[in-house]
Amino acid sequence: MNCIKIGILGLGNVGKGVWNIIEENKNKIDNYLGSNLEIKKILVRDIHKNRGIAIPQEKLTTNPLEIIQDPEIDIIIEVIGGIDTAFEYIKQAFENGKHVVTANKAVIATHGNKLRALAQRYGVELRYEASVGGGIPIINTLTQSLSANKIDELVGIINGTTNYILTQMSDFGMDFDDALKLAQEKGYAEADPTSDIEGEDVAFKLSILIAVAFGIHIEPHEIPREGITKISKKDIEYASQLGYKIKLFATAKKFDNNFEFHVHPTLVPSNHPLASVSNEFNALFIRGNAVGELMLYGKGAGSMPTGSAVMGDILEIGKIIGTNYKSTPLDVVSEKHLNIIGEGISQYYIHTEVIDEPGVLGKIASTFGKYGISLESVVQRGRGNSTVPLVFITHEIERKQLDKALEEIQNNNIINKVASILRVENL
Amino acid sequence: MNCIKIGILGLGNVGKGVWNIIEENKNKIDNYLGSNLEIKKILVRDIHKNRGIAIPQEKLTTNPLEIIQDPEIDIIIEVIGGIDTAFEYIKQAFENGKHVVTANKAVIATHGNKLRALAQRYGVELRYEASVGGGIPIINTLTQSLSANKIDELVGIINGTTNYILTQMSDFGMDFDDALKLAQEKGYAEADPTSDIEGEDVAFKLSILIAVAFGIHIEPHEIPREGITKISKKDIEYASQLGYKIKLFATAKKFDNNFEFHVHPTLVPSNHPLASVSNEFNALFIRGNAVGELMLYGKGAGSMPTGSAVMGDILEIGKIIGTNYKSTPLDVVSEKHLNIIGEGISQYYIHTEVIDEPGVLGKIASTFGKYGISLESVVQRGRGNSTVPLVFITHEIERKQLDKALEEIQNNNIINKVASILRVENL
Repeated sequence: MNCIKIGILGLGNVGKGVWNIIEENKNKIDNYLGSNLEIKKILVRDIHKNRGIAIPQEKLTTNPLEIIQDPEIDIIIEVIGGIDTAFEYIKQAFENGKHVVTANKAVIATHGNKLRALAQRYGVELRYEASVGGGIPIINTLTQSLSANKIDELVGIINGTTNYILTQMSDFGMDFDDALKLAQEKGYAEADPTSDIEGEDVAFKLSILIAVAFGIHIEPHEIPREGITKISKKDIEYASQLGYKIKLFATAKKFDNNFEFHVHPTLVPSNHPLASVSNEFNALFIRGNAVGELMLYGKGAGSMPTGSAVMGDILEIGKIIGTNYKSTPLDVVSEKHLNIIGEGISQYYIHTEVIDEPGVLGKIASTFGKYGISLESVVQRGRGNSTVPLVFITHEIERKQLDKALEEIQNNNIINKVASILRVENL
Repeated sequence: MNCIKIGILGLGNVGKGVWNIIEENKNKIDNYLGSNLEIKKILVRDIHKNRGIAIPQEKLTTNPLEIIQDPEIDIIIEVIGGIDTAFEYIKQAFENGKHVVTANKAVIATHGNKLRALAQRYGVELRYEASVGGGIPIINTLTQSLSANKIDELVGIINGTTNYILTQMSDFGMDFDDALKLAQEKGYAEADPTSDIEGEDVAFKLSILIAVAFGIHIEPHEIPREGITKISKKDIEYASQLGYKIKLFATAKKFDNNFEFHVHPTLVPSNHPLASVSNEFNALFIRGNAVGELMLYGKGAGSMPTGSAVMGDILEIGKIIGTNYKSTPLDVVSEKHLNIIGEGISQYYIHTEVIDEPGVLGKIASTFGKYGISLESVVQRGRGNSTVPLVFITHEIERKQLDKALEEIQNNNIINKVASILRVENL
């Protein structure tokens, strides 16, 4: 039996998952490949650190070149994270004729185009299934199973931290702050949760999905985004009464000849499959012009699920080694003819606080009408206090129409406060 | 640009879907392949039949050999359905050096082992993503993305007809007969619905899934199965009150060193993602030893979704043509060491009708206790009639324990009637 050797850059959560999977499933993996798969070397910062995992010390090194320049190593797994160093290592790996598998969303979202071009130039493979949605086979589905489809729409719940927080708020009536604290205690949120709760992590992943599904390159910072920090317990309660759940959506879709993409907390009908994606789970809803509606659901993070995706990539590359098979580059799915319009139109949920007196609703509705905004539903909750919540759901409009109308309404002192504005997707 | 030529055996729903997808998405498909994909010939029964689709008449033939023996044709799509003729055609296609893609669950469930061996012998590819779950990438996920996992459990809703009927009964309080009639009117059920409603169709598909995920060959007729014809509106109502939905499940799982598999209407907790799979949609829940829980959801039938899966297979084979790449045969996932035990243990829902008098519940519970059956919940609905419904949910037991206990209870005239016994899966 011949041998396929891999090197791993980084021995955090994902690196350990890869090690454990190869230990546990070695028979199946080697049979699948028809080769003996061996981890030859792992890059770490400190060889002597106790990692709670039995790895022979001679497999560890602090010198990346011992892996990148080792002529025996066929595939390199990059799981150090971050952007600049990871980019350098991957580039050098390509130059040394190595295939690369990475779980690093930041480097693929930021430098994916460059790295894909480099991989092609050096005739090697670059795979990154684990960079979006952990163990869920999102990239493979989009690039292989659905290769004969044109993708019309993607809607994803692709951040476990925020989905865990929103689930706690929804199922147990928790405040955002308490739910965040709980998420941190459970290890679902980091000590500094900013990147997750402000939607930055989701924007990285959406940028990758847009490249893969539409062949369009959008920088993560170009994606309009909003996190979940302004969602209140009240919003979740009103949404529920109206038949919706609130989820942090990453959206990319074609609409006529336009292409829109954004990250927003969004109301989704309670009976839609995406509404039942709870806690730390992730899901991607896909609409293709042949397959119709498809949803992939699973664990979007964690050592073993993410390791599973890395290993799926490794085994696919393992099957290619020694053959003249070539993967299809991404630019074949290019939708470059589309107008890039960012946010697009949407239905909106608006939670306002108004003075409880006759005629208020009439004045608001008239002003909405003046700006071409029609309402799908209006709900007034509670009576008798000086201000009462008044909640609207509009039909599809542009956000700037809504902002203008609300400005006029606020200038006329009809509304005390606009507590929140959220998108509504009746998928 | 070189050319990949395909022949299609059969021009029903799926054949037309394939034709339409190639027409609509030709650019993307040809770019993906780096080749011009052409449908050279299609086998039909009647060349002159009006099919509502603009296919040049010279592409049609009534002679299968014009396709199977055409040296220009690289890949043959078998979508005539049925078992014997389809088997013959596929075999002859292999003998003529053709790769084969099929959407035919019956031939793969019945002769999959033989056909896979033949494909290997002739050095060609056999793909059948479309045979289970229509457009959902189930086979690819199990054989490629999850290739480094050992699969522990599969639970599928893989028949759209029965899921449509159960949804109508659940959401609109319909009787089975009315829901079946509606399904027939909408085209979701055939004039003779037996194969769907009795679970035969599901058994075919489960047999394929077992082969793919566990490397074990189980004939469809060896799979214990029960259809949905005995489910009453009442059962769905009681299940709902207990927090469950009833779905027709195809199950295969490892449990210690045992392997169980069966097709049964089953109560699943209302908040589980499988419970929100409604109407004609299909879903497969997968538990792998690395990836954890995964669910794939989408359209399990229909011309375009099934065509999408066929085309995914075609494009994968198209990429292999002219290379020395070889797919991995299925036997690497073999779990042949497991005890094949069929039904296994389960929690059960039992709906009985009893005489409304004191002491009845005590007698039943004592008899259950005698046979080692403990109860998770008991619900009595209604009072005052001569008989009242009494509904139990047991803890995990073997079915034969339950049958013995119920026999004794019925012999002692404590229960008037056992209206239904259903499995409960708290996944």
